[in-house]
Amino acid sequence: MANIPHGIPEKTIERLSEYRRTLLASHKQGITHIFSHVLAGMHGITAVQVRRDLMLIGFSSDTKKGYDVKVLIEFIGRILDSEQPMNIAVLGMGHLGQAISKYFNGKNLKLRIVAAFDIDPEKVGSEINSIPIFHMEEFEQRVEALDISLVIVSLPSKVAPDLVVPIINAGIKGVLNFTSSPLSFPQGIVVENYDITTLLEKVAYFVKEGEEQ
Amino acid sequence: MANIPHGIPEKTIERLSEYRRTLLASHKQGITHIFSHVLAGMHGITAVQVRRDLMLIGFSSDTKKGYDVKVLIEFIGRILDSEQPMNIAVLGMGHLGQAISKYFNGKNLKLRIVAAFDIDPEKVGSEINSIPIFHMEEFEQRVEALDISLVIVSLPSKVAPDLVVPIINAGIKGVLNFTSSPLSFPQGIVVENYDITTLLEKVAYFVKEGEEQ
Repeated sequence: MANIPHGIPEKTIERLSEYRRTLLASHKQGITHIFSHVLAGMHGITAVQVRRDLMLIGFSSDTKKGYDVKVLIEFIGRILDSEQPMNIAVLGMGHLGQAISKYFNGKNLKLRIVAAFDIDPEKVGSEINSIPIFHMEEFEQRVEALDISLVIVSLPSKVAPDLVVPIINAGIKGVLNFTSSPLSFPQGIVVENYDITTLLEKVAYFVKEGEEQ
Repeated sequence: MANIPHGIPEKTIERLSEYRRTLLASHKQGITHIFSHVLAGMHGITAVQVRRDLMLIGFSSDTKKGYDVKVLIEFIGRILDSEQPMNIAVLGMGHLGQAISKYFNGKNLKLRIVAAFDIDPEKVGSEINSIPIFHMEEFEQRVEALDISLVIVSLPSKVAPDLVVPIINAGIKGVLNFTSSPLSFPQGIVVENYDITTLLEKVAYFVKEGEEQ
């Protein structure tokens, strides 16, 4: 895929994902065109930022009617999505794992949560949100059989570090970690650590900063 | 608080919050000093990055034994924490709201989830994770009575936009939004939109990028 630009900043990737979600919702409502400042307004950012992001990915078909919603959705898809769908597993099917799987499936046709792993005997062998739950002991074997390449870590923070070796051994390529234990992996495995405490402390800090200035 | 530096980058704030959590865990284990490269290793970053972040906040008491863990915890606290504790409310006590409140309370003494709001008659009037659940109708009144300044939005994405006006009217200062509806607020209200779909799409993108290069 030689025409796809590389080295797009992380924040642009995040916004492209967000634009696409807004565009999909607009498309559903029958909206065919959208101006950059309207799209910007829906995300609380400037039109310049939107135009800059789209320029970075080589999209420039701004017309007098604004962007063609359907074309832009497809264009962003070519940047973000892999050609083959990626399968995802949720590690830890407590409240957070259940919230994520319920919320996520169906949102992106190229990314699907196909399995969950837990050690709770009441959960193992059952299905929650139509996702089968397997015992953690079967992790490597199921990852291979189900062609899973991404995992979401949503189990108790204390046990999260124990997963590093199984995740490496199973050949997982990307990890989205929601526990408060930052996980490190060798190069070649993408990891994003999203601790809710950090997010809350950040919001609180900027509230405090705003009050002091 | 004239000595506290302003304009610290967002990413540094995030890392300070993460360093503090690691330092607190180390302190609990009886560790009194830590080298920058050890702290860096625990977060999968370079020692240069750690030293740069701490330099930004004016912390420079690196000794031959490394950083004094207790002193550094207190120093980061002076940057991140407000002097008065901030009270938080969770809007939507489904799986995600429950996961967050169970996980978060007790993690930071200056930030406390003191109330939750929902419209489910089975939940309203009860307590989950020791947090009382009120009806959304009582939102403004309870926010004032309980001195709540931050909210976590964890209800279905469809209804999230309906909360913007009540949040503004109630005088909320900071919003952490986990729904897929990006919320915009007037200046003076800090908002962080964290859509799980975005996080997953980002990880998937960087996995794809890694494979193509």
